[in-house]
Order: sequence, then C-alpha cells, then structure tokens
Amino acid sequence: MILVADNLQITHRVVARAVEDMNPEPIQALVKQCIGAGAQMLDINSGPLTREPERKMSFLVETVQSVTDLPVLLDTTNPKALAAGLSSSKNKTLINGFSLEPARLEHILPLAKRFDTDIIGYLLYPHGQVPRDEEERISIAIELFSEIEKAGLSPEQLIIDPIIAPVLWENGHMQNAGILNVIRNLPDLLGVPVRTIAGISNLTTGQGVSEKKLLLERTYLPMLAAAGLNMALLNIFHAETVKTAKAASALLSTAIFSWEEVPSR
Amino acid sequence: MILVADNLQITHRVVARAVEDMNPEPIQALVKQCIGAGAQMLDINSGPLTREPERKMSFLVETVQSVTDLPVLLDTTNPKALAAGLSSSKNKTLINGFSLEPARLEHILPLAKRFDTDIIGYLLYPHGQVPRDEEERISIAIELFSEIEKAGLSPEQLIIDPIIAPVLWENGHMQNAGILNVIRNLPDLLGVPVRTIAGISNLTTGQGVSEKKLLLERTYLPMLAAAGLNMALLNIFHAETVKTAKAASALLSTAIFSWEEVPSR
Repeated sequence: MILVADNLQITHRVVARAVEDMNPEPIQALVKQCIGAGAQMLDINSGPLTREPERKMSFLVETVQSVTDLPVLLDTTNPKALAAGLSSSKNKTLINGFSLEPARLEHILPLAKRFDTDIIGYLLYPHGQVPRDEEERISIAIELFSEIEKAGLSPEQLIIDPIIAPVLWENGHMQNAGILNVIRNLPDLLGVPVRTIAGISNLTTGQGVSEKKLLLERTYLPMLAAAGLNMALLNIFHAETVKTAKAASALLSTAIFSWEEVPSR
Repeated sequence: MILVADNLQITHRVVARAVEDMNPEPIQALVKQCIGAGAQMLDINSGPLTREPERKMSFLVETVQSVTDLPVLLDTTNPKALAAGLSSSKNKTLINGFSLEPARLEHILPLAKRFDTDIIGYLLYPHGQVPRDEEERISIAIELFSEIEKAGLSPEQLIIDPIIAPVLWENGHMQNAGILNVIRNLPDLLGVPVRTIAGISNLTTGQGVSEKKLLLERTYLPMLAAAGLNMALLNIFHAETVKTAKAASALLSTAIFSWEEVPSR
C-alpha cells in the first residue's frame, strides 16, 4: 500500500499564505516533513484557484519538485490549473481526479490523454451524490471505465476512489463496510486488475483531532489494506496511522516476513 | 466480535501457584482484572493437569464463577479435567476444543454431546500439522462438521478456529492472509452460518512483549473483524488491542454509529 500525503492543501493557512506570497520555503519545508514522516507520493490540493490558476499551480508543482522526485497527485477541479501543473511537472504525475460529472468528463479527463497520465475516478453520481450500496458503486465503476475508453485511455490508467463516507453520516459506517467489499471484488467483477485509492481522512471529517478519530482511522486502514487497497491518501503526520499502514503491508506482503518492516515506537 | 480473555493460563506463575495451593484469591483477583479490562468471556487454560485433574479443574471453574457470570471456555486436552469442569460449571460453557486428532475425537468431542455445549474445532490435521493453504483449511472444516454430525451434535454447535500462524514461521504471514479468506468464505462455501474464533496471541508467539508485536496484533485484528471473525481470544491486558477491537466493532456494526462505542485514551 502506497502512502500518499494529503498535507499539501491550500486550505492550510501556511500553504495558502506561501502561494499568495509566491514564497517557496514554507512549502519546501512541509514537503520535507512529509517525506520524513513516510510519504511515498504527495497530493497537491490547490483547490479551485480562481485567481491566476496557471501561475499558482505551476509555482506549487515546481516548488514541491525542487525538493523531491516523488510522484505527485494534482488535485483540483480547475482544468486550467491542472493543465499548467501537468505542463510544469517533471516527476511522475497523477490526476486527482474525475467523476461522471459532465464538467469533469469534458475538461479534466481529456488532460489524462493529452499528458498521458494515470487518473483517479470517483465512485460518485454525475451530480456528486454518493451511491447507496455496493451494486451502485460497481455500476458507476463500470461507467468510469467506459468513459476512460471513450477518452482514448487504457483501462490500466484508471485508479478507482470509492469515496470513504464520514462515519457521522447516516449509515456512513455501513457504507464503509460495503466499500471494503467493493475494493476486494472490483478486479474479479470487472475482469481486469483495478487499482484503488481511498482518502482516509474522510472517515472522521469534522472539526478537531481526537484520540477517537485517530483510533478509528488506524482501525479502518488495516481493513482497507486487507481488502487490497493500493494507495492510501492520509495525513502523513498521524504517526500511529502510518505505523499501522506499514505493519499492515508487512502482514500482507508476499515476500518473506521481516520484523525490520514493522515500525517500533 | 466477542473478546475472550486468554489470561487464565496455568503457565502463568500466579495461576499455577494458586491451583497448587487451592487458593482462590489470586484467581478471583485476576478474573476481576480481566473483566475490568473488557473481557466478555474467559478461557480457562488449565493445561493437561496430570495430577488431580478433576479436583483442580473443578477448583478453577468454581473459583472463576464465584466472581462472574461470564461464559467460560474450558481449554484442556485432558478429558477427565474437562468432564469435571463441565460438571462443576454453572455459567455458559464452551469446550476449547477438538481437532481431527484421534484422541480428541474419541474423548473430547463426546463431552460436547454429553454436556450439550458448543465446541471449538481447530483447522489442523489429525497429527497436528498445519494445513498449507485455504483449500486444505476448507476441507478440514468440512471434516470437522462431519465429525460433529457423527457425534450427534448440530452444526451450530461448532465454532471454527483457523489457528493463526506465528509471523515468524516460514510463510506464517502468508498463511494468515489466507486465513482471512477462510473466515470470510466459510459460511458461503459450507452453506451454513459458521462461527469463528481466533487466538490473536499466536500471531507473535515468542518471548517478550515488544511494541512491534503489539502493533502487529492491533493491525491484524481489524482485518479479522472485517473478515467476520466472531470471537477473538486475546491478552485482555493489551489495552490498545482491546480499544482497536471495540473501534472495529463500532465500524462494522449494523446499528447506528455511536462515538460512545469508540474508546478514547
């Protein structure tokens, strides 16, 4: 399971200020901290970037890549920002992401073809509604694959994000139990290897960080890992969650077990 | 997932001494600690009890039940001890357990019929060898069900223990990844509801308690819970593991999610 840091978010004050001032240092420092904490990829969540999208996204991508060769995920709904980010990226780059929403199909998906990148597809209805059960999720996944083909991409370029539900939603935790089955069964049902990604922080969306929230995410993560999740998007500064992810990988590895791969305190 | 304390073991010095002296107090104190730590059932592991098996097992059972109404699992290979324990037990009682080993089929299994109790069946070959893969485990499970029927018991009385492998065994962790599938698939494959139990401490068998071992068990436990494990036999004094088990139950519950069910530090 690849650990993708979700820490580079424009909603974080430090990042927002650095982008506003075009000041690379705070972002470079943050990237180094993410890598030190175990990040294997970095999600650059720039938000919609309504003003100067190209300049700001290029600045973000170049700043991140001035200190690391790690792959990046470009996370924005703004196609101009996305295209600029894809143009300025030297590292391996993934688009995060598209859905069946018409604007994304029209403006985001073609960029995956133009820049020949992998792209994340969300299991959501065209207007953002969340599917109600496993069956609906599977049928949306099939539609995403069909859109991928229509866009001239190969199926292997699609990475499915089942969209973890906040536990506080009505039935949120039951949705998440079903999502485990979706992750496990997608490859068999679709007859192709299907990579998956999930945003762990979604599970406990809401204000504050409590011990209970951290306990829930480090409990759900091994379930996702055992279901076959390929990439976990998470707050890489949650040290116990990261340790749990590494322990899960050691337990599920097909290589010889090694205590070295299990973190200690 | 029901939490079964594995702490009442004759191999623990305090328990051994108390049994030798027929002194109930240390055992009563230990039982109270187990309950305080979250035990919902208690495994009474008396070992083979070569000297005075009946008297000692009866003493153990009566002592435990002098302070609790919780169900108990009687864990011994000695049929005399087991029969005495079953005779003296007032609480709900399970036998832990039998396998395809001829001596257990002949002397242990009939006691489940005689005392009308549930019984745990181990996925092991007749001479104690561990099956090599999922297919072998499933076929042993089928044989256990067949023995249960031959003994005049109903299939619902059998609880399957897939026998978690120590990670340090050659391929141990891979066996354990396969065990998740066995737990998940047994009910469908056998066409009956099948309850399962697993001994979590087996995972990290060996001397000492390290942070790494605790991390591994609290990482594997959510995987087992998501696979549908009904009962977890564990060291109930591993507080973080117990919290993880409760968080897993909250995440997998079919009832309305409640933060109250998620432990905090």
